[in-house]
Amino acid sequence: MKETVTVESIVRGIEQGDRRMLARAISFTEDEHPIAEEIARKIYQQVGHAYRIGITGPPGAGKSTLTSGIARELRKQNRTVGIVAVDPTSPFSGGAVLGDRIRMSELTTDPGVFIRSMATRGSLGGLAKTAQEVADLMDAAGMDYVIFETVGVGQGELDVARATDTTIVVLVPESGDSIQAMKAGLMEIADIFVINKADREGATKMKIELEMMLKLRSTHTRINWLPPILETVANRGIGVDKLVETVSRHRTFLLEQGELEQKRSLRLQEKVRQLIQSELSKNFWNPRRKELFQAKIKSVLEHRLSPYQLVEELFGIEE
Amino acid sequence: MKETVTVESIVRGIEQGDRRMLARAISFTEDEHPIAEEIARKIYQQVGHAYRIGITGPPGAGKSTLTSGIARELRKQNRTVGIVAVDPTSPFSGGAVLGDRIRMSELTTDPGVFIRSMATRGSLGGLAKTAQEVADLMDAAGMDYVIFETVGVGQGELDVARATDTTIVVLVPESGDSIQAMKAGLMEIADIFVINKADREGATKMKIELEMMLKLRSTHTRINWLPPILETVANRGIGVDKLVETVSRHRTFLLEQGELEQKRSLRLQEKVRQLIQSELSKNFWNPRRKELFQAKIKSVLEHRLSPYQLVEELFGIEE
Repeated sequence: MKETVTVESIVRGIEQGDRRMLARAISFTEDEHPIAEEIARKIYQQVGHAYRIGITGPPGAGKSTLTSGIARELRKQNRTVGIVAVDPTSPFSGGAVLGDRIRMSELTTDPGVFIRSMATRGSLGGLAKTAQEVADLMDAAGMDYVIFETVGVGQGELDVARATDTTIVVLVPESGDSIQAMKAGLMEIADIFVINKADREGATKMKIELEMMLKLRSTHTRINWLPPILETVANRGIGVDKLVETVSRHRTFLLEQGELEQKRSLRLQEKVRQLIQSELSKNFWNPRRKELFQAKIKSVLEHRLSPYQLVEELFGIEE
Repeated sequence: MKETVTVESIVRGIEQGDRRMLARAISFTEDEHPIAEEIARKIYQQVGHAYRIGITGPPGAGKSTLTSGIARELRKQNRTVGIVAVDPTSPFSGGAVLGDRIRMSELTTDPGVFIRSMATRGSLGGLAKTAQEVADLMDAAGMDYVIFETVGVGQGELDVARATDTTIVVLVPESGDSIQAMKAGLMEIADIFVINKADREGATKMKIELEMMLKLRSTHTRINWLPPILETVANRGIGVDKLVETVSRHRTFLLEQGELEQKRSLRLQEKVRQLIQSELSKNFWNPRRKELFQAKIKSVLEHRLSPYQLVEELFGIEE
């Protein structure tokens, strides 16, 4: 027998940190169920507590292992952690090799950790929006930190940076060539660089190169925060404590400079704009317009009507 | 002295295949200059001739070298080729190593080839839209083929597939592990698989694995076209002729099945939707709403007003 779930019971559950209710709310959000918006409206007062960390980098850089390491470190400090894996190569999302998943299994049974992996079908834009909403739910459920794990190779990096307070870019010594090429994009978003698997050949060379690039840039941008470059060997836990310390230092920096507030303000503005877009779209597509669209799209395809003319006709219909 | 350029002269130039005018139109499009829409409206009748090929895969797979190879092969058949590089690691976009760029220099001086690389700043969604518009311009200027080169690692792949008629997924033997993890996404979009650098160890193993995965899937999806797996050594030109042949074969298949028309119809529908969204947004943001937004966003940030309430207030204002 399926129990009836009301919006109120979900909202109450989330506010009490009930994992089952949190999981349900997340599912509604992923499915874009109408209930999701009702929940979002009601928990909104509780959102804003969690600190948001983004971990991005090329496939195979060890992002998931680092994510687990950071989560473990934060748990030692008695902080609760939500993880949103929007990376198709993440073991959290069912990817990667068995060993990784075993290493993570201790996290999955820890009641202070909540992990959710998200399907990466569809456009990145839509995914970024949903990932944010999922993070808001975790935030409202009392998580102290939310970590986004996401693959980054030049596209969508700005989305990550916009969604988070601290962005960590993870590289490995051997990423050399392809990383070089995308350095501009990475430079722009990295608050902290991590060279993972730093026990491998090439780590020092990569560090020196990154330092040089950062120094060249620092003369004209971001004078106040020079992104530190850390070395880790995440699968042996080496360097992760220092990384978590550095995240704290960055957080303090943002707070003192008023940048944390500014980041959150930009995020909110984006949220309002998205709500407006979806409302406009909902209002626009009334049955008559849908009908006209279906009736005329063939003419557009056959070049008898231009898309611009069709748009004009659609706007010509009264609401 | 700067000459005056009118929309008419640009449109005429494009229709006559004038490269300088094409380049200008593309710049207007990238800058989202109002002139770009006027041009798009006027050239619309000329769009629809070019066959669109997408080349995607992880960084370092040799996508640019393959793109050049395909372009060269098509030039032998006397076809004109436009290349849109939306890949930050592409030598066309200024990335990668010098050798690659030298290999491509012969293309850049060929009047039958038009190359444009696009900055990958900003969101993938916006980029995909602009890339389409640039392809439309090349199409209107008479290019027989437009090749999109784009990095793909699980995100944004669907955008590539939607934009193109034939999608080629390029892998290398050593991509093994990380590719495994993202195979689901790649399977979904690949019309043709290419294992590039096939003279390296592991090529045969990867081919067998891909074949097995494809067979497992083919029982329940895409019964009519089983994506072929080709092996190439692009920097020595090996296998590229066969690849171009296979693209032709896929094109014929799409035509016969009516799928080419369906793909184009979906693209047009998406275009119409985008035009509507941007029109709605433009109409919505009148000065009074902008003012209210600026005045109230701080209250939202301070949790005195929810984003949902602000949206309601904004909609409450008369147009």
